[in-house]
Amino acid sequence: MAHRYDCIIVGAGLSGLIAARNLQRAGKNVLVFEAQDYVGGRMLGKHIAPNQYIDLGGQWVGPTQDRFLALLDEYNIPRFPSPLQGKVVLIYNDKRQEFNGFFQGFAEGDRPNVPEEEWQDAMKAWKTFDELSQSLSPQYPEANEENKKLDSQTFAQWIQENTQTDFGRWYFAYMCRAVGFLGPAEPDEVSLLHVLWGNKSASQAEHPEAELIHDGAGQIPSKIVTELNNEIHLNEAVVKITQDDHGVEVTTLKGIYQANFVIVAMPPYLAGKITYHPPLPPIKQQLAQRFPMGTLAKLLISYETPFWRSQGLAGVGMGNTEWIELFADSSDPRSGKGVLATFVMGDRYHRWIKLTKSEQKSVVLSDLAKYLGQQALSPTTFDIQDWPSNQWVGGGYAAFMPPGVWTRFGQSINKPFNRIYWAGTEIAERWAGFFDGAIRTAEAAAEAVLKSAE
Amino acid sequence: MAHRYDCIIVGAGLSGLIAARNLQRAGKNVLVFEAQDYVGGRMLGKHIAPNQYIDLGGQWVGPTQDRFLALLDEYNIPRFPSPLQGKVVLIYNDKRQEFNGFFQGFAEGDRPNVPEEEWQDAMKAWKTFDELSQSLSPQYPEANEENKKLDSQTFAQWIQENTQTDFGRWYFAYMCRAVGFLGPAEPDEVSLLHVLWGNKSASQAEHPEAELIHDGAGQIPSKIVTELNNEIHLNEAVVKITQDDHGVEVTTLKGIYQANFVIVAMPPYLAGKITYHPPLPPIKQQLAQRFPMGTLAKLLISYETPFWRSQGLAGVGMGNTEWIELFADSSDPRSGKGVLATFVMGDRYHRWIKLTKSEQKSVVLSDLAKYLGQQALSPTTFDIQDWPSNQWVGGGYAAFMPPGVWTRFGQSINKPFNRIYWAGTEIAERWAGFFDGAIRTAEAAAEAVLKSAE
Repeated sequence: MAHRYDCIIVGAGLSGLIAARNLQRAGKNVLVFEAQDYVGGRMLGKHIAPNQYIDLGGQWVGPTQDRFLALLDEYNIPRFPSPLQGKVVLIYNDKRQEFNGFFQGFAEGDRPNVPEEEWQDAMKAWKTFDELSQSLSPQYPEANEENKKLDSQTFAQWIQENTQTDFGRWYFAYMCRAVGFLGPAEPDEVSLLHVLWGNKSASQAEHPEAELIHDGAGQIPSKIVTELNNEIHLNEAVVKITQDDHGVEVTTLKGIYQANFVIVAMPPYLAGKITYHPPLPPIKQQLAQRFPMGTLAKLLISYETPFWRSQGLAGVGMGNTEWIELFADSSDPRSGKGVLATFVMGDRYHRWIKLTKSEQKSVVLSDLAKYLGQQALSPTTFDIQDWPSNQWVGGGYAAFMPPGVWTRFGQSINKPFNRIYWAGTEIAERWAGFFDGAIRTAEAAAEAVLKSAE
Repeated sequence: MAHRYDCIIVGAGLSGLIAARNLQRAGKNVLVFEAQDYVGGRMLGKHIAPNQYIDLGGQWVGPTQDRFLALLDEYNIPRFPSPLQGKVVLIYNDKRQEFNGFFQGFAEGDRPNVPEEEWQDAMKAWKTFDELSQSLSPQYPEANEENKKLDSQTFAQWIQENTQTDFGRWYFAYMCRAVGFLGPAEPDEVSLLHVLWGNKSASQAEHPEAELIHDGAGQIPSKIVTELNNEIHLNEAVVKITQDDHGVEVTTLKGIYQANFVIVAMPPYLAGKITYHPPLPPIKQQLAQRFPMGTLAKLLISYETPFWRSQGLAGVGMGNTEWIELFADSSDPRSGKGVLATFVMGDRYHRWIKLTKSEQKSVVLSDLAKYLGQQALSPTTFDIQDWPSNQWVGGGYAAFMPPGVWTRFGQSINKPFNRIYWAGTEIAERWAGFFDGAIRTAEAAAEAVLKSAE
C-alpha cells in the first residue's frame, strides 16, 4: 500500500516551506512538491561574489511585519537599516533635483521642488485617498454596497477625478506601479478598491522597506529546508488533485501520492493550472482567471563602491524617466560594495521586453546615470530577474485584482475546498505581496490542517 | 522509435476538430487530445426525447457567418429561422408589456412603452456607441493612442458618461451581459475598447441569431469525428509541450507523443494551464492571466408545446427581473415541442449559484412566469449547463478583456510560438465568441501549419 502523508504541500516558495515546517514541528509527515529546480520561489538570492549576495526577489522587511521578523530572529539572521544617507534624487519631466525627502504614497521629509500648485494637488489627493483607505475594514473586502462602488472603478478613474495637475496624476500612477502591495499595475488595470485596501492592509506608512537582511532574504529557504527532514521533490509540478471523504490523491508526471490534506501554496493563477476532482467551485475557478500577476522585472546592479555616497546622495531615486521610476540602495555594509535595486514596471516593461538583452542593460544604465551621474554606467554586475517570463511565478511582485473582482470573486480567496487549503502571499489579509503575508497564510493553513486532522 | 505525427491538436472543441479535419484532408497525420469525456466543447447537445434535441452550448447562426454556414452546408445540416411569431415581452421595473420589437444593442421594430425621455436617452447613447464602434478597424485592436484611451476605461465608465436615465443605463448593461461577443461581463469588469471592437467584429446588426439548426448544433462534432479517421484521445489532458528546432513533444498523464507542430485550440486561460518548454513569451503568459471567461449558465426549458404562441407571444423576453434578463424561443418545428433558451449572467449568476438546485429551478421558472404566464411553471424538462463550473471550459459564452489588456497584451493573442499555433473562438478576429470565429481560427491555424510544413 502506498505511503500516506499527513499533508502534501504544493509549491516550495516561502509559504509552502513555512507550512511544511510548521506541520512537521507538530509531528506531521509532509511532502512538498516544487515545479522549479530550486526552493524559495520569489525568495531568491544569488552570490555575485563570495561575500556578496543579491536578492532577485523580495528583500525588505519592516517593523510591523511581525511574522517575518520572528522568522528572521528564529534563524538568527541579522538585519540592517536600508541605507538612506544623503539626498534622494527626483527627475520629473527631465528636471533633476536632489532633496531630503521621499514619497511612495505618503510623503516624508522635505518636499521636492515642483510647482507649489502641483505639489499641493498631489498632497490633497493623497489625503483624500488615505482617508478613504483608512475607512475600510482591514479584513478581506466584503461585498457591501460601499465596496461594490469602489470596486466598480479603476484607480485611473479615481486619479482622473481627484487630481488636477500632471504631477498629481503621475504621483498616484507612480505609487500604483511602485508600491509593493500591488501587482504592480498601471492605474487603468486595477480596481480602486484593491488599491485602497492594499494601502490599508499593507501600508507604506508602516515602512515595510525599513530594513534589509545581511546576506539577503534568499538565504532563508535553504535554512528552512535544512530543518525540514521530510521530502521535497523539485522539478515535479502537480498536475491533478483528486479528493474524496477519505483523503487526497496528488498526481504529478512522476507519480501518484496519497495524503490526508493538501495545501496549495501558490499564486491563485498558478493554483488554477492544476486540475481538481471534484472541480473547484465556480467562483474559485473564475477567481483564478481574474487575479493576474504584476508586470515587472527586478534589476540588481552592483558597483565597486556605493559611489553615490561621496556625492552626498542616498542611492535612492524616483522620477518619470523613460525606463526607471524608482531605485533604492541595497548595499550590504558587510560587503563594502554598492548595489542598486530597481524595477522595470508596467508599460515600461512592455517597451523594454522588446529590446535586446544588451539594449535592456544600456537603457537602464543610461537612465540611472541621469540620476547618479556617469559612474552609474560602469557596474561590476548587472542582473535581470524577469518574473513575467518565469511560468512558475508568472509575474511580480504579486497579484492584483482588476475592477469588479474583489466584490464578486473575493469571497473565495482563501476558503478551503474540503481537504484542500490555500496559502501564498497573494491571498494574505495582512501584508499581501510581502514575505510577511506569505508566512501568515502558511501559518493559518498549517493550523487549519492540524485542526482538521484532530 | 515513437510515431511522429504531423500535427497534434490540443482540445476537441469545434476549432480543434476543424483544424484536425482540415489537416487530414491535406494528407496530414494528426492526433487530437481532449481533456473531457466528449468532443465538441461548447458545441454540446443533448437528447431530451428521441426526436428532441437541446443545445447546452451555442445554437444560433447568422447570415454573414460564412464559415459556419459553409460547414452546415457541407454536412447537409438544415436550418430554420429563429421563431419570432408574436410579440416580445419586456419587463422593466416590474412593469410588463408586449410589443413588436427587440433590442440587444441596436433596436428593431416598434419601441417599447418606456418614457420617451428614457428611450431617447438609450437611443442617443446607442448612436454614439455604434458610431465610435464603427470607426474602429475590424482587425485586432492595435495599441495606438486612440485605442489606448478607449482601453483605459471600463464600459461602466462610458455608460455613466453617456446616459442620463436608469433605463439608458440598464439598456447598455443588459447589452453587455447579453450580447454574444462578450464574456458576458458586467460593465465594470470589461474594457470599453473590448466592447466597441466586439460590436464591430461580431455585430448584432448582422443578426448572428437569425437561424437555428434542426436537431441542434450539438450534432456537428460527431459528424466531424466520423470523417476524422485519425486518433482522438478523450479524457487525456495535455500537461506539457516541449519544442526545439526539430519538433514538438506533447506530454499527458498517459504518455509522450511526438509531432512536427501543435495547435492549441482552447480558450487562452486554459492554454495557460499547460507548461511550455521553452516557456511562452512573457506577454503571452500574462495574457492568459488576463482574459477571463464570462460568468454565465445556460438553461434549456422545454414544454409540451410552445404555449406562448397561442397567446400571441414570440417566446422572447427581456427585462430587469431578478434572475432572467433575456430568453429566446428555441423550439424546433420538427419536434412540435416548446423550448426556451435562457441565461443566468453576471451578478445574477453570483446570487443564483448560492441557491440549491431546486431553488435555482424555481426562481428561474417564477421569473419566466412573469413574462409568459403560469404555464411557464410546468416544463417537461429543465436543463442547466453551468459553464463556470466546468474546469475544461471555465465559463461562457467566451472570454473578455478587462481594461488595459487589449493594448498591452493583445498583440500576442494569436502569434505562433515557433511550432505552436493557436486556435479557438476567443482569439478570432471576426465573430469571436461564436462558432464562426472558432472555425476561422482553426482554418487559419491549419493553413499556417501546412505552410510551415512545406
